[in-house]
Amino acid sequence: MIHTILLAGGESTRFWPLKQKNLTRFFGKPLLMWHYEQFVRIGIKHVTVVANKESIRDIQKVPVPKKLTVDMVSQEGKGQVHAVFAAGTHFGEDPALILNASDIYEDTLLKEILDSQKKNPEALIMACVRVTSYFPGGYLKLKEDGSIEEIIEKPKEGKEPSDIVNLVVDIIPNMKKLCVQLKTYKRFPDDGYERALNKLIKIGTKAYPLQTFSQWLYLKYPWHTLSVMDACLSSIQGQHIDPSAEIGNHVLIKGPVIIEKGVKINEFTKIVGPVYIGEGTIIGNNNIIRHSHIGSQCVTGFGTDITRSYIGDYCWFHSNYIGDSVISSDVSMGAGSVLANLRLDESPISTRVKEEGVNTKRVKLGAMIGTGVRIGVNVSVMPGVKIGKNSFIGAGVVLGEDMKDCMYCRATPTVIISQNLKKPENKRDEFKKNL
Amino acid sequence: MIHTILLAGGESTRFWPLKQKNLTRFFGKPLLMWHYEQFVRIGIKHVTVVANKESIRDIQKVPVPKKLTVDMVSQEGKGQVHAVFAAGTHFGEDPALILNASDIYEDTLLKEILDSQKKNPEALIMACVRVTSYFPGGYLKLKEDGSIEEIIEKPKEGKEPSDIVNLVVDIIPNMKKLCVQLKTYKRFPDDGYERALNKLIKIGTKAYPLQTFSQWLYLKYPWHTLSVMDACLSSIQGQHIDPSAEIGNHVLIKGPVIIEKGVKINEFTKIVGPVYIGEGTIIGNNNIIRHSHIGSQCVTGFGTDITRSYIGDYCWFHSNYIGDSVISSDVSMGAGSVLANLRLDESPISTRVKEEGVNTKRVKLGAMIGTGVRIGVNVSVMPGVKIGKNSFIGAGVVLGEDMKDCMYCRATPTVIISQNLKKPENKRDEFKKNL
Amino acid sequence: MIHTILLAGGESTRFWPLKQKNLTRFFGKPLLMWHYEQFVRIGIKHVTVVANKESIRDIQKVPVPKKLTVDMVSQEGKGQVHAVFAAGTHFGEDPALILNASDIYEDTLLKEILDSQKKNPEALIMACVRVTSYFPGGYLKLKEDGSIEEIIEKPKEGKEPSDIVNLVVDIIPNMKKLCVQLKTYKRFPDDGYERALNKLIKIGTKAYPLQTFSQWLYLKYPWHTLSVMDACLSSIQGQHIDPSAEIGNHVLIKGPVIIEKGVKINEFTKIVGPVYIGEGTIIGNNNIIRHSHIGSQCVTGFGTDITRSYIGDYCWFHSNYIGDSVISSDVSMGAGSVLANLRLDESPISTRVKEEGVNTKRVKLGAMIGTGVRIGVNVSVMPGVKIGKNSFIGAGVVLGEDMKDCMYCRATPTVIISQNLKKPENKRDEFKKNL
Repeated sequence: MIHTILLAGGESTRFWPLKQKNLTRFFGKPLLMWHYEQFVRIGIKHVTVVANKESIRDIQKVPVPKKLTVDMVSQEGKGQVHAVFAAGTHFGEDPALILNASDIYEDTLLKEILDSQKKNPEALIMACVRVTSYFPGGYLKLKEDGSIEEIIEKPKEGKEPSDIVNLVVDIIPNMKKLCVQLKTYKRFPDDGYERALNKLIKIGTKAYPLQTFSQWLYLKYPWHTLSVMDACLSSIQGQHIDPSAEIGNHVLIKGPVIIEKGVKINEFTKIVGPVYIGEGTIIGNNNIIRHSHIGSQCVTGFGTDITRSYIGDYCWFHSNYIGDSVISSDVSMGAGSVLANLRLDESPISTRVKEEGVNTKRVKLGAMIGTGVRIGVNVSVMPGVKIGKNSFIGAGVVLGEDMKDCMYCRATPTVIISQNLKKPENKRDEFKKNL
Repeated sequence: MIHTILLAGGESTRFWPLKQKNLTRFFGKPLLMWHYEQFVRIGIKHVTVVANKESIRDIQKVPVPKKLTVDMVSQEGKGQVHAVFAAGTHFGEDPALILNASDIYEDTLLKEILDSQKKNPEALIMACVRVTSYFPGGYLKLKEDGSIEEIIEKPKEGKEPSDIVNLVVDIIPNMKKLCVQLKTYKRFPDDGYERALNKLIKIGTKAYPLQTFSQWLYLKYPWHTLSVMDACLSSIQGQHIDPSAEIGNHVLIKGPVIIEKGVKINEFTKIVGPVYIGEGTIIGNNNIIRHSHIGSQCVTGFGTDITRSYIGDYCWFHSNYIGDSVISSDVSMGAGSVLANLRLDESPISTRVKEEGVNTKRVKLGAMIGTGVRIGVNVSVMPGVKIGKNSFIGAGVVLGEDMKDCMYCRATPTVIISQNLKKPENKRDEFKKNL
Repeated sequence: MIHTILLAGGESTRFWPLKQKNLTRFFGKPLLMWHYEQFVRIGIKHVTVVANKESIRDIQKVPVPKKLTVDMVSQEGKGQVHAVFAAGTHFGEDPALILNASDIYEDTLLKEILDSQKKNPEALIMACVRVTSYFPGGYLKLKEDGSIEEIIEKPKEGKEPSDIVNLVVDIIPNMKKLCVQLKTYKRFPDDGYERALNKLIKIGTKAYPLQTFSQWLYLKYPWHTLSVMDACLSSIQGQHIDPSAEIGNHVLIKGPVIIEKGVKINEFTKIVGPVYIGEGTIIGNNNIIRHSHIGSQCVTGFGTDITRSYIGDYCWFHSNYIGDSVISSDVSMGAGSVLANLRLDESPISTRVKEEGVNTKRVKLGAMIGTGVRIGVNVSVMPGVKIGKNSFIGAGVVLGEDMKDCMYCRATPTVIISQNLKKPENKRDEFKKNL
C-alpha cells in the first residue's frame, strides 16, 4: 500500500500580505479541501497532512470528505526536508506519494504517477515538466538511459543541466531509506530533501522522470491566487443559481456562474461569467462583475466594477474599480477608490517580495490586500502594490508603494484656504436646456 | 380662551452652515408651515409667532392655511425670556400654550396638554420626557405630590435633580402674571424664562409635569435636519407621482415616494423610498436615490448616488456620492466628488460647533453644506465637515476641516512635469480579446 | 472655365495639441474629403489642392470621389501669398475660385459666388460677412458705389473701416495678373495676398463684396473642432445603425445617430443623439453618450459619460467623465479620471495659444488632448487644458496647466505612512440592515 503525504507546512512568507496560502478559500472551500476532493476522485482513501505549529489548528478545521481519512502531523524545523521527515517516520518501508499543498495539478497526473509506481514499485519517480524559459526550481540531469542522475536545485540562469524541471509530485519507494537520508540533511532547509534524494540515487535507487502535460498551478506569490482562481472559475459549467438568491429585475447574467444561497443582485447590474458569488453576498445596483471570485457576506455597493479579481469574505465596496486584484477578507473601500491595474507604459508589473524585485510578468495586475484593511474615498492604489493586514489608507491618497501590516497612510495636508474673491454665478438654467 | 405662542426668533447660530432653521423646507414647505398645518389639525385657530428682526420678513412670507390666522411679533432682546414677553403682553390674564418652532412633536402631545389645561385651568403645565442619558436642557425637580418644585436649567452632568427633562411645551395659566416676572429676569437671556417660572411656582402657582411618549425632534445642530427629514419621509404612505412627471423606461421606484410635478427621472435609475423629489427636479441616468429628500429644480446628473441625505433646491450634482449629508440650496458638485460618511475606524463622528467639540453620536454622517457652495471635480469631503455659504473648493481637494462662509480652498500645486522617457505602448488589441 | 484652388498648406500651429487640421476626421472622413464631396455636390469637377511639404503625403492619401479629379501642388514659402502663387502659375489668364480648407461653408455660398462670376467675369469677387463684434481678420473698405476700395488686414480693434469681414472665398478674374502681384509681395507671409489684391484693385480691377448668410465654421484653435463636429452631427437625419452592430439588451438609443459596422453597445447604456460612433468601437456598460463624435476602434469601458465631445480613433476610457472635450486618437484614461468642463465661477474659459491668452468664449470647455496621451486613474484635468502628444499623466494629478508634447506629469509624493493606532472595527452587519 502506498501512502500519500501532503505538505502543508510551508510558511507563506512570499504570499504576504495574504496568509496561509493552503487555506485560501475558493468557492467557499479552503484550497486544502480541493486537494481532499481530488484524492477522493482518484481513489486515495487516506492522507497524511504535514502542517506547522502555527497553522495546524486552522488546518485541522478544514472539513474532510466522508470517503477520506486524514492524519495530521506537525513538522519541527523549516523546509521540505523536515516536512517529509515528520510524516515519513510513520510509514516504515512503505512507499509514499509526496505532494505539495500549494501546487495544483489535474487528476490525470496523479493517476499516471500512481500507475507508474505499480509498474515499477522499486523506483523513485519524479513528475516533471519541460520549460521554455528559466524557472527558479529543481532541474533534472538525466543519464543516457533516461533515468535521473541528479537533481540540481535552483541552478543559476544559464547553468541549467536540462529543460526538465521537477514538480513536488514524487513517488518514494521506501520511506525508511529516505528518512535515514533526510535525517542527515536536516540542516539544509532549502534543499535537504533534494540532497537526500540525490544520495538515494547515488547509492542505488533507480530514479525516473515522469513528464506531464497537466496544468500546473501554484500559490507562491500573492498574485498566483489569480491563476488558481482562473482554474477554479474555468471549471464552472453552466449557471448554478441557488433558488434562495434574489436576482433583481434588469440584471443580466451571462456565461457560467455559481451564485450561492442568500445572494442578492441588485438592478441594472451585469454579471459576465465565469463568476463565483459566495453565500449572502449583496451585489449593488449598476455594477459589472466579470471573471471574478467574490466570497461570502460581501457588499459591492453602487456602481462597482470588479474584473478578473479575487475577493475574500465580508468585504465592502462602493463605486470602486477593482481590476486584476487579490483582496482577502474584511476589507472595505470608500467611494471612488480605484485599484489601478495597468502601467501607463503598459509594461509588465514588478514588485518587491522579501526585499527582492520580482517581475510578475503580468501586464495587468492590481493590488494585493490583506485582511482588515480600510481604504478611504477617492484613493488610487498603483498596480502591483501590496497592503498589509489592518492597515488604513486615508482619502485621496495615491499609494505607489507597499504598506506593511498595521500601518496608516494619509495624504499630507496640502490645501490652502483663503478668502473667496468670487461669488457663485449660476448659468445652470441655460445648461439645463442642453440636457 | 387659550392663546398659542410659537417661538421662532431663535438665532440658528448652532445650525450653521445652514440658516434660519425654522424655514428649512421639507417637501417644499418651510418647517413653520408644518407647524401651521398641525395647528389646523388639532383645532388651533390662531397663533402668535414671535420672530426676530432679521427673520421676520422671511417668516411673514410663509403661507398660512385658510383655517388659521397668524399674528407676528418681533422680540427685542435675545433668549426665550424676551420672546415670550414680546408675545405675552398682548394677552392680559389669558392662559397660553408656549411652543418652540424648532421642536417637532406629534399631534397627540398638543392635544393632551390642551386637555390638561381644561381640567386644571389654574395650573402651570410643562410637557416633559424621561431621559436615559444626560441631555443639556432643563430638568424638573419634583415635590412629593408629583408637582414641580423647580426647573434646574442645564445642570452639570451628574448633578441632574431627576431624569425628567422639560420640553418647551408649556401651559401658562395667566400670561400677565408671567410677564411681570419675565420683565424682572430680562437680563438673563439664557434662563430668564425658567427663572420667571420658578418664581411663579415659589409665589404660589401650582405646576405639573405632563410626561409624554411623543416623538420629539428638534433642529439645533445642522445634522438634526436628517432626523426631521426621517420623520417627514416616514409619513409618506404609498407612491404619489404627479401625472406630469416623466419617468423614463427602465426606472425602478420602490417603497413610498412623493414625486412632484415636472420631475424627470432618467433611465437605469432606482429610487428606493421613502424618497421625496421636489418640483422640476431632474434625476439623471444610472442613479440610485435612497431614503432622501431632494428639493425642487435640482439636477443629479449621471451616475449619482444619494443616500440618507437632505438636499435643498436648485442643486446640481454629477457622478457624486452623497451619503448622510445635509446640503442646502444652490450647491454644485463636480464629477467624481464624494461626501464621505464613515470614518475608517467606524467611530462616531465629532465636529466643532462654535469652538466647542460636539459628538454627533452618528457613525454615519457626511458633510453639511451652505448655499452657493461650488465643489470641483474629484473632491473628497471628510465625514462631519461643514462648509459655509458661497465657498468654493477646487478639484482634487481632500477637505478635512470646516470652511467658513465665503472661503476658497484649493489643493497646493504638487505636480512635477518632466520629459517623458517612455513612448506609448499599445497592447490594447490584446486587452480587447478579454472584454 | 474657372479653376478651384483649395488652400490646405497652413501650419496648424494654433491647432496644437491636435495636428493637421484639414485631416481631422469626422464620421471617418478627413475634413478635406468633406470639401471634395461638397465640390461634387455643387458641380465642381476639378480642384487644385495646395499642401505644404510636411502634409502633402498625408493629404494625397485622402480618398477622392469618382466625379472629382485633384491636382496636388506644394507651396514653397509660408502664407497664403505663397499658397495661391504655387497653384496660380498653372492657370494662365483663367479665373479661379480660392478657398481655404480649414473654413467650412454651406453649398449655397459656393453656388452664389460661382453665379456671380458668370454674371461679371471681369470682377474680383470676395465673399464676406457682417460682424457685430471685433474679428481678427480682413475688413473691407467700400467705395460709394458699393465696390471694394481696399482690404484692411487685421486692423486694431476700434480701427475697423467697416463691419464687413472677408472670408477666403474669392473669385480671381485673371490668375496671371494676380500672380505677377503675388510675386512682388512674397516677402509678406501674413498679408502678401491682400496686398496683391489691393494692388490689382488700385490698377483697375473692379472688386465686389458678396455678402453671405451661410454658416461659416473654421478650424483655427483646437476647440473649433467642437463647432465643426456640431455641424456634422446636426446633419444626421434619423438613426443609421449598421446591421452588423451589436446593440445589447436594455440599451436606449434616442435621437439621430450613425452607428457604424462592428460597433458593440453594452447594456444599461443610453445614447442620446446626435451621436456618431465609428467602426468597431465598443461602448461599455452603464454609459451615457450624448451629442458626441466617437471615432473607430475605441473602447469606452464601464460607467463612462461622454458629453458634447469629439473623440478620435482607438481611444480607451474607463469610468470617465469627458465633457466638451477634444481628444485625438490613441488616448487612454484610467478609471475615475475627469476632464472638467466648467469653472467654479462659471466664467468663460481662457487658454494660452502660442504664448498669447485667448478667451475661448466657451463657458463649458474640457481638455484638448493630442495622440498617444496616457492618463492614469483619478486624474482631474482642468477646463481648457491642452495636453501634447505622447504625454503621460500619473494617478491623482490635478492638472491645471498645459503640457507640451512628450512630457510626464506626476503628483509629488505627499503621503505619510506611520504605525496604525487603530484596529479595524466592523459595524457593517448593522449597516447592512439599512441596505
